[in-house]
Amino acid sequence: MQSVLNYLTQNQDRFVAELCDYLRFASVSAQPQHKKDLLACAKWLLAHCRKIGLDARLCPTAGHPIVIAKTRRANNSAKPHFMVYGHYDVQPPEPLDLWKSPPFEPRIVGKNLFARGSTDNKGQNFAHLKAVEAYIKTGTPLPCDLTFVLEGEEEVGSKNLSTFLKAHRQELACEAIVVSDTGMPAPQHPALTYALRGIIAFEITLHGPARDLHSGIFGGAVENPAMALSQLLAKVRDENGRVKIPGFYNGVAPLSKYEREQIRRYPLSDAGLKKLIGAPQLFGEKGFTATEQRSSRPTFEINGLTSGYQGEGSKTIVPSWARAKVTCRLVPNQKPAHVRKIVCAWLKKNCPPSVRMEISAGHGAEAYLVSPTSKPAQAALCALEKAFGTKPILMREGGSIPIVNEFKKVLGADTLLLGIGLPDDNAHSPNEKFNLDCFVNGQRMSAFLWKELTR
Amino acid sequence: MQSVLNYLTQNQDRFVAELCDYLRFASVSAQPQHKKDLLACAKWLLAHCRKIGLDARLCPTAGHPIVIAKTRRANNSAKPHFMVYGHYDVQPPEPLDLWKSPPFEPRIVGKNLFARGSTDNKGQNFAHLKAVEAYIKTGTPLPCDLTFVLEGEEEVGSKNLSTFLKAHRQELACEAIVVSDTGMPAPQHPALTYALRGIIAFEITLHGPARDLHSGIFGGAVENPAMALSQLLAKVRDENGRVKIPGFYNGVAPLSKYEREQIRRYPLSDAGLKKLIGAPQLFGEKGFTATEQRSSRPTFEINGLTSGYQGEGSKTIVPSWARAKVTCRLVPNQKPAHVRKIVCAWLKKNCPPSVRMEISAGHGAEAYLVSPTSKPAQAALCALEKAFGTKPILMREGGSIPIVNEFKKVLGADTLLLGIGLPDDNAHSPNEKFNLDCFVNGQRMSAFLWKELTR
Repeated sequence: MQSVLNYLTQNQDRFVAELCDYLRFASVSAQPQHKKDLLACAKWLLAHCRKIGLDARLCPTAGHPIVIAKTRRANNSAKPHFMVYGHYDVQPPEPLDLWKSPPFEPRIVGKNLFARGSTDNKGQNFAHLKAVEAYIKTGTPLPCDLTFVLEGEEEVGSKNLSTFLKAHRQELACEAIVVSDTGMPAPQHPALTYALRGIIAFEITLHGPARDLHSGIFGGAVENPAMALSQLLAKVRDENGRVKIPGFYNGVAPLSKYEREQIRRYPLSDAGLKKLIGAPQLFGEKGFTATEQRSSRPTFEINGLTSGYQGEGSKTIVPSWARAKVTCRLVPNQKPAHVRKIVCAWLKKNCPPSVRMEISAGHGAEAYLVSPTSKPAQAALCALEKAFGTKPILMREGGSIPIVNEFKKVLGADTLLLGIGLPDDNAHSPNEKFNLDCFVNGQRMSAFLWKELTR
Repeated sequence: MQSVLNYLTQNQDRFVAELCDYLRFASVSAQPQHKKDLLACAKWLLAHCRKIGLDARLCPTAGHPIVIAKTRRANNSAKPHFMVYGHYDVQPPEPLDLWKSPPFEPRIVGKNLFARGSTDNKGQNFAHLKAVEAYIKTGTPLPCDLTFVLEGEEEVGSKNLSTFLKAHRQELACEAIVVSDTGMPAPQHPALTYALRGIIAFEITLHGPARDLHSGIFGGAVENPAMALSQLLAKVRDENGRVKIPGFYNGVAPLSKYEREQIRRYPLSDAGLKKLIGAPQLFGEKGFTATEQRSSRPTFEINGLTSGYQGEGSKTIVPSWARAKVTCRLVPNQKPAHVRKIVCAWLKKNCPPSVRMEISAGHGAEAYLVSPTSKPAQAALCALEKAFGTKPILMREGGSIPIVNEFKKVLGADTLLLGIGLPDDNAHSPNEKFNLDCFVNGQRMSAFLWKELTR
């Protein structure tokens, strides 16, 4: 193991130079004019994987190709098999005028490497490639077989990944998937994300009069849809921040003592969070800390309200309709279809007869959970601690990452989310960057991980 | 009296031709390019008033001139003095492509005269001029002195009328003002409008986080301003349609038995109203009929709601702020400043500490009431009945007409609102028209009115 770690230390300058080459491709999957840049990037990655000693191939899809790279395994290898997932496509760099240097001309300032895709996700997946290179080039036997799946459509919804997974179900069958595409709270706080929230989205529209009415001539004798909507939405949440729709919390498992202890270690105080969001005060479900509320509890969130006149000054109307856009964040064990059903039924039951309700359904995604006390999770925590030299944080993320549900569904395997991005990395924003200490420690974490996972 | 009525009958064709001349002026006060058309129209009106035997003059203002026309009175006339108010300016005719014939080329189809300004207000004020012409030309002594005040800025807010009234307070001192600029429910249902609702307008904004937040990362630990606004607005009205803000109904006089009987005569059934507005059902304050609710009861009306994302699909945010535009309709005895004060104080008291409230004040106007059992109101009802041959309706209007408050404030006199426009006259819309039966009966009503008022 020491020779692997030494190799990583000794070759750091070259690794950074190679990462810069990787970052020079404008592999913007959302923009058709960059199709050839995506192909060029995939081909460069293919060649690089081969150069470091992996068996690699390009798999065409209906969109951009997927790079598959595998450690060479003996026939009938009895070693456990793991998959590493990453993506070589990047977000659009616009607005360009906010970048301090061109997005596809990597620039190092102190400990930071600036470029589009540096943290999301090229830098993070490259760390795993460099760890496996160290094993191969030092002749250190890997305790497992590895397959890298590097796709080019993550930023446009991984539209062709599911088909690919299903077609290669046998080849990709594995113990677990490792994904470094999330974050850690600070350079000294490595983290394993073991849970994600799910989501359901929908739109409620209440229809009243056939058209906007003069509020002088008709006001008082007709329901105001904006008032009806306010009264309906108001009933959803009580003064303790709890959703009042019966059954909404069905199946939600209480946080274990262990999890609550771990969540308390998350390095952001209530005062720090309040400052970060700039609200008059924090507000959430009673009985839970702010970190628990935003990572481990379901919500009913109004994302937008629209009704009547919205311009300057006043317009004396009774609006014809009122609309709320809503998303509910879900936690493990809440089934999106079930929650959608009971929420919609409750809304319909509580809608007054003075308006006509229309509910249009949007997207949905399941929550995700890997038990933090499971063997792979504990192995990942050990690898993080050895690599970074400090005790890692066990995190739940409040957002959703649909591909992990896809992995579970198609391959039946859990995903370890071992992100090495920082909160100030500007993912999806101008001046995206990647911390080079995180790059080094990420390689070390990957090197330790395969040992810990097979212990 | 019979000779006056005969004169009106015998000269109807000429009156219509003269009204067409009046309507040919494109006296659009909102559009600067029509300044010369307004002046030309005022001069034509001046000449016409002189021709029918009135003492008339043009009074310049900071905007368009006011035409003053008076019956000739002996020195130290002991006759009571009444004022007739009207306006010769018109609404912009746009959109022009929706007109079936050009807006300033009057066209008669059956009983209707189509032209911009026909019902609002040239046709209506011209009826009063024709009645006084009949008195003068037949040598019938008028039982009162009359002053016509015909302004050119009603459609742009009568900005210079108040200054004019104050400067001519003595000359205009009168028993009452007569205005035909409202409506009647149907050709066979003449009406006296004896009350108008007042109004206050304001905007409530609730500020939460400093910017829109990711609902996955932060949702659950921060107040959603759209939810806070919904919960605040929901508290305003109970399930019986009553405003729950303490003191809101202070001073509101109950409707008398006589008024309620009169209101019941308004020829629009609940089914008819429901069909007219196209709502799933009628809804209003319990204990009042729909006609009472929309004419005689105060309201708290949300005119618009704005918060967060309003485009296609969904955007997973906690909005930074949420806003409601509100107008309250007020009834006689409710003081706008007082109602504004108690409503704002209540909103502030009920705003949760998780958001910051901002209330911006808009316009306000007092309600208006002439007792329907007062002598002038009863006289007007007699005149209407004699002119139209059917029992008139006693109406309250749900909207506001600010000039009547101005008349009361400056001249200390009540206004009789004797509108002869019909609901389908398309005032302010393309294909505005005026019913020629209403024109004839309006002249007769005016002729009878001076007798009844001085009986």
